[in-house]
Amino acid sequence: MHALIVHAHEEAKSFNGAMTETAIRTLQETGHTVEVSDLYRMRFNPVGGKHDFTTLADPDFFKYGVEQTQATSNKTFAADVVAEQEKLFRADLLIFQFPLWWFGLPAILKGWVDRVFAAGLTYGGGRWYSNGVFRGKRALLSLTTGGPATIYSPRGLNGDIETLLFPIQHGMLYFVGFDVLPPFVAWSVSRSMQEQRAEYLRAYAERLKTWQTTTPLPFPTLDQYDETLQLKPGVSD
Amino acid sequence: MHALIVHAHEEAKSFNGAMTETAIRTLQETGHTVEVSDLYRMRFNPVGGKHDFTTLADPDFFKYGVEQTQATSNKTFAADVVAEQEKLFRADLLIFQFPLWWFGLPAILKGWVDRVFAAGLTYGGGRWYSNGVFRGKRALLSLTTGGPATIYSPRGLNGDIETLLFPIQHGMLYFVGFDVLPPFVAWSVSRSMQEQRAEYLRAYAERLKTWQTTTPLPFPTLDQYDETLQLKPGVSD
Repeated sequence: MHALIVHAHEEAKSFNGAMTETAIRTLQETGHTVEVSDLYRMRFNPVGGKHDFTTLADPDFFKYGVEQTQATSNKTFAADVVAEQEKLFRADLLIFQFPLWWFGLPAILKGWVDRVFAAGLTYGGGRWYSNGVFRGKRALLSLTTGGPATIYSPRGLNGDIETLLFPIQHGMLYFVGFDVLPPFVAWSVSRSMQEQRAEYLRAYAERLKTWQTTTPLPFPTLDQYDETLQLKPGVSD
Repeated sequence: MHALIVHAHEEAKSFNGAMTETAIRTLQETGHTVEVSDLYRMRFNPVGGKHDFTTLADPDFFKYGVEQTQATSNKTFAADVVAEQEKLFRADLLIFQFPLWWFGLPAILKGWVDRVFAAGLTYGGGRWYSNGVFRGKRALLSLTTGGPATIYSPRGLNGDIETLLFPIQHGMLYFVGFDVLPPFVAWSVSRSMQEQRAEYLRAYAERLKTWQTTTPLPFPTLDQYDETLQLKPGVSD
C-alpha cells in the first residue's frame, strides 16, 4: 500500500520531524511505499484563490467552489494544486503531521486542505462522508501539543481534544470519505524529557504497524441520517 | 470605540464583502472608528515561520513559540506582523469576516492568528482566558456557510456549529481574553435569494448596534477550574 504524509513543521530537527522520519521508516519496513509533502520545504502557498486555476470560468466574479468544480471538469487547476491532488489520490493512507497551533492545523496545512480538497474533485453530487470519494482509504492525525493531556480532557481548561479535532477529523477527513484512525497525540513534547520523547516515537511506530486493522473513529454513516440530514432517533451522536 | 475587521474573502463583490461594508457603515454611524485588514487585498502571508522575525534567537533550531517570546521582549517581529499586532491592540471590537471553509477559518485568516497572536505578546505567564491580555474587549465571528442551518445542528450531518466554532471562539478569541459575542451566521448564502440576503444584512446591522451590551458566550472563568485546570465539581461545561 502507499502512504502520503503531509508534514507541516519548518524545523527538520524538530520532534515533528522525528515523527515523520519514524513514520517513513516504519511504513517502508512493513512493506509500504511513502511520499511526503514537506510543506515548508516546498514553500507551499496555502492561500486558496484565483491563482489555483489556469483559467477562470468567471473572471469578473470569483466564486471559489464554482471555479473548483469547473476546474475539475476542465482540468484547469494550477500545477502546484494538481501535484498535491495526484499525491492525495495515490494514497491508501493519508497522515497529517503537525504541531497543534491555536487548536487546529497550522495555516500552511489548513490551506493545503482548502486548495487540494477541491469541490467537484473530492466531494459533490452525493459523494460525502460514508459515500465519500476516498471511502475504503484511511487517514490519521499525528500531532504534538504544548500542553499536557489533562488540560485537553472533557472538563479540562482547553476543552476536549476530540471536540477540538472534530472539524478536522469529521469535517475534513471523514467528509471526503476517509476512515479516520484515532489520533496519535504527543503531549507537551517541548517540556518532555528525552526518554518520554523516545517512548512517543516507539509508540507511534507500533501504531503505524497496525494502520490497516485499527478500528476507525465511530462516526455515523449516511444511512443513520433521515432525509433532512438529522441523525435518526435512537442513533447516538 | 474602535473596531478591527479582519476580512478573508478575495472577491470584493461577494456577500462577505457586503457584510464588511455593512459593518463599516453601521459602526461608523453609531460613533465608532473602524479599520479593516483585507487579507487578500494586502496579499497577507499566512505562513508562520522564521520570516516572522528580523533576527532569530536560535538560528540553528527554530522553535516558533520561543522565537515569538523573544521577539516580544526584543521588538524583533517583522514589519508585516507588527502592523497587524498594532491593529489588534488598538481594537475594542475584533471581527473576523469569512466564509466557513472546511469547518474553519480560510488559511489566510488562520495564519493571521498564528502569526499575530504571538506567544509572550498575547498570552503567557498566567495571562489567558478570563485573565487574558484582551479582557474587557469583545470579539465576533461573522461567517457565511455553504449548507443550511439544519445541517449544522447538534444532530445534523455536519455537526453542531457551536462545536465546530469552539476551537476559534474558545481556543483563539477567549484564550487571549476577549469576551466572545454569539456568532453571526449567514447560512447558505450562495443558494439564497436576494431578499434573504438583504435580510441578513439588515439583521447584521442590528446586531452591530448592540455589540457593547450583547451578552457574551458563557465560557467558564479561571476561578471555576481547580489547581489541575479541571472544571470544579458542579460547574457545567
